[in-house]
Amino acid sequence: MKNINTKLITIFIFIFVATNIIFAQKNYDSLFLKIAEEGLDKINTHRLLSELCTTIGNRVTGSESASKAVEWTKSQMEKEGADFVWTEKMMVPHWVRGKIEKAEMNVNGKKIKLDICALGGSIATPKNGIEAEVIEVKNFDEVRALGEKAKGKIIFYNRPFDRKRLDGAYGNAVNQRSIGAIEAAKVSAIGSVIRSMTYALDDKPHTGAMHYEDSVTKIPHGALSTISANLLSETLKKEKNVKLKFILSSETLPDVESANVIGEIRGSEFPNEIIVVGGHLDSWDKGQGAHDDGSGCMQSIEVLSLIKRLGLKPKRTIRAVMFMNEENGLRGGLDYASNKNRANEKHIAAIESDAGGFMPHGFGITTDSLKFEKLKSFAKHLEFIGCEKFQKGGGGADISPLQKQGVPVLGLNPDGERYFDYHHSDNDTIDKVNPRELEFGAIAMTILSYLISEEGL
Amino acid sequence: MKNINTKLITIFIFIFVATNIIFAQKNYDSLFLKIAEEGLDKINTHRLLSELCTTIGNRVTGSESASKAVEWTKSQMEKEGADFVWTEKMMVPHWVRGKIEKAEMNVNGKKIKLDICALGGSIATPKNGIEAEVIEVKNFDEVRALGEKAKGKIIFYNRPFDRKRLDGAYGNAVNQRSIGAIEAAKVSAIGSVIRSMTYALDDKPHTGAMHYEDSVTKIPHGALSTISANLLSETLKKEKNVKLKFILSSETLPDVESANVIGEIRGSEFPNEIIVVGGHLDSWDKGQGAHDDGSGCMQSIEVLSLIKRLGLKPKRTIRAVMFMNEENGLRGGLDYASNKNRANEKHIAAIESDAGGFMPHGFGITTDSLKFEKLKSFAKHLEFIGCEKFQKGGGGADISPLQKQGVPVLGLNPDGERYFDYHHSDNDTIDKVNPRELEFGAIAMTILSYLISEEGL
Repeated sequence: MKNINTKLITIFIFIFVATNIIFAQKNYDSLFLKIAEEGLDKINTHRLLSELCTTIGNRVTGSESASKAVEWTKSQMEKEGADFVWTEKMMVPHWVRGKIEKAEMNVNGKKIKLDICALGGSIATPKNGIEAEVIEVKNFDEVRALGEKAKGKIIFYNRPFDRKRLDGAYGNAVNQRSIGAIEAAKVSAIGSVIRSMTYALDDKPHTGAMHYEDSVTKIPHGALSTISANLLSETLKKEKNVKLKFILSSETLPDVESANVIGEIRGSEFPNEIIVVGGHLDSWDKGQGAHDDGSGCMQSIEVLSLIKRLGLKPKRTIRAVMFMNEENGLRGGLDYASNKNRANEKHIAAIESDAGGFMPHGFGITTDSLKFEKLKSFAKHLEFIGCEKFQKGGGGADISPLQKQGVPVLGLNPDGERYFDYHHSDNDTIDKVNPRELEFGAIAMTILSYLISEEGL
Repeated sequence: MKNINTKLITIFIFIFVATNIIFAQKNYDSLFLKIAEEGLDKINTHRLLSELCTTIGNRVTGSESASKAVEWTKSQMEKEGADFVWTEKMMVPHWVRGKIEKAEMNVNGKKIKLDICALGGSIATPKNGIEAEVIEVKNFDEVRALGEKAKGKIIFYNRPFDRKRLDGAYGNAVNQRSIGAIEAAKVSAIGSVIRSMTYALDDKPHTGAMHYEDSVTKIPHGALSTISANLLSETLKKEKNVKLKFILSSETLPDVESANVIGEIRGSEFPNEIIVVGGHLDSWDKGQGAHDDGSGCMQSIEVLSLIKRLGLKPKRTIRAVMFMNEENGLRGGLDYASNKNRANEKHIAAIESDAGGFMPHGFGITTDSLKFEKLKSFAKHLEFIGCEKFQKGGGGADISPLQKQGVPVLGLNPDGERYFDYHHSDNDTIDKVNPRELEFGAIAMTILSYLISEEGL
């Protein structure tokens, strides 16, 4: 009799649990379809991004437009229905491009204009520029091997993106930009230029962060468009005595105050358990910062907006953070993680979108194995929008300080093939962003953050 | 003793089979990586497509440029190293747009220009056009309900793509284009126009096939750009006595001769067992037919080229077929399947790429369950390029006559969100095609056709 009772109880428990699972599952499925339909119907993310791009435009850290972006973003989050919206201030770097950027090559007296821009952080040239013989290299070994020959010359880094790579071409080429000036100065070159970091062949120089070392002479460091880089390289193969002249007028001013912009839907059961969704509000001072990273910011606002529009009451707090200064300092990310406001908060997860507003296919995840498996078990709920590829490794620069504190971090992974066509250049404009692709990213972030809120991690 | 021998033999067989599987697997993995690297390094598909788009341009069935495309394609397949290249001739329809396409709405005497184009197959208006009151409808029920009211009027079909749909919006809207003129004529309308079949809001009318019925009066049928459609619709809400005037000068001429263009790598073991890879060589007479379907054709040539460049000797014949007349008649697909040249051939599978040169994510497959499972077992080999989603259902219009004969058919499935932004319009140009995304499609088709060749089906 006891045995039969035990069996009966087991069966009842099984039925109870199974019913709950099926019921919950069914609820999720129809809810997530509603989220997707609401998102796609309104394509609100693209509306917000259009306004950011056309009324404010690009917004390099420390600039007036970055200040405007802070105010505009705050008011948008309020309009979209966040429970609380606030800013958290911090000091940020203030590099300015200056008005004059010019380059030309001089081939035995014949002068040919090239497309150039200063890399972010570069010092200016003297007012009339620098002119010198130019030496083309592919990597730092070649620079070091130049030794004395480099003295007084301009180094031209021309290692292109490796087309054969399935991915990671940027990571494999970007040290030319980031530390090229240091390596060139070490062999007494007076300036350096790089081939822009892109697969595309066009006339737009692509900017991006570059660094100096305190112990090494600072020299001006610029980017040539890929068309100009090819022209210079071909000329160097054919001609002797090719000189390059360039003028940059950039400078680094004293730090100024700026802010992260934060809005949230407060959790109904565990308000101090936080799930961050975010992007970075600053961009480079080229184009409109549409894909990089207006997209990630507006998608994060849309997460809050979708939750509000559908009348959801998540158990945990879902917080959208627009980080300031990702591109050249990470002050926003660092400040957020260490801010005193965090004292009583427990961060459950942080999700960043900073790989462009393209069609998303999954998330890259950095956390321990148990939490990875739990997150992976959520992937099936994103299959209906094709965003179920949950892979180990990933996150985002702005949330890396949280990661160091042990917070699980996730990065939205969209199609990556077109990203560097636009990245950090005048090509990064709103017309390059497909409204539905952008919205699918916001939908994926909404579903995943809601799942973490309801199921915990 | 006997028992031990049996065990030993079993173990040996197991080791032998396992070794072979592992060895074969390993060979495939390194070979397929080589195929991908070779493809991405040269991006030959985009080079071919650029030449097709810029030297020949669009190529509507029956046109001079379609004839040029046949010759050009034949010579390209020879250059790329196909073992055999030939054409198979057939008669095709010859519809021409004519030079004059104009539309304007007349609002109480004020005339406002609208963007219009004839739909493919439409008759012309009288030389001075038609002008009448216009009635906006969303579907055929509304047309039928008009009854007598429609007499002498112009019907304006304005049911937009349903944004809420995850996919299939085109299929849900396209009957306005394909049979809208028939339904409008049944209620004695004198002409009809549609809202262009696209999510995009722009000033480009999108053309496409439309049909008449022998028993129903033929009336002219055009497409308005989505901007013009919105303007007309808003005006109709605000104003009375809105008239629409439009002039089309299209006509259908007698059939002319054209051809499918075919090239192949002959199978080393089973030459009469054929795997088709293909696209359609004709396009509409708008833009350059870059995504639709220059992409699929050039990808199919690249399949042969990659096999040749890597020195592979497939067991079965891999054949690239550029079908003529997919857009308005399917004569190429029908002729291919029924051609006397097919008498001694056995078609193992047919793969079509006709959904644009975007990033591919898998294949849609129509065949019996056993063959589907075998094909699905190949998917793992495409995971490294993100093209492992093998789903039931799919194929392509050109290979549908083969499907009716029992041949397994497969359609390459790329990202679909941007397709209808360009489709059948002046927007469908080479600058909208990313070289790497296009090449990934060719790589996926190469790997899958080679697997079918080596493993059978």
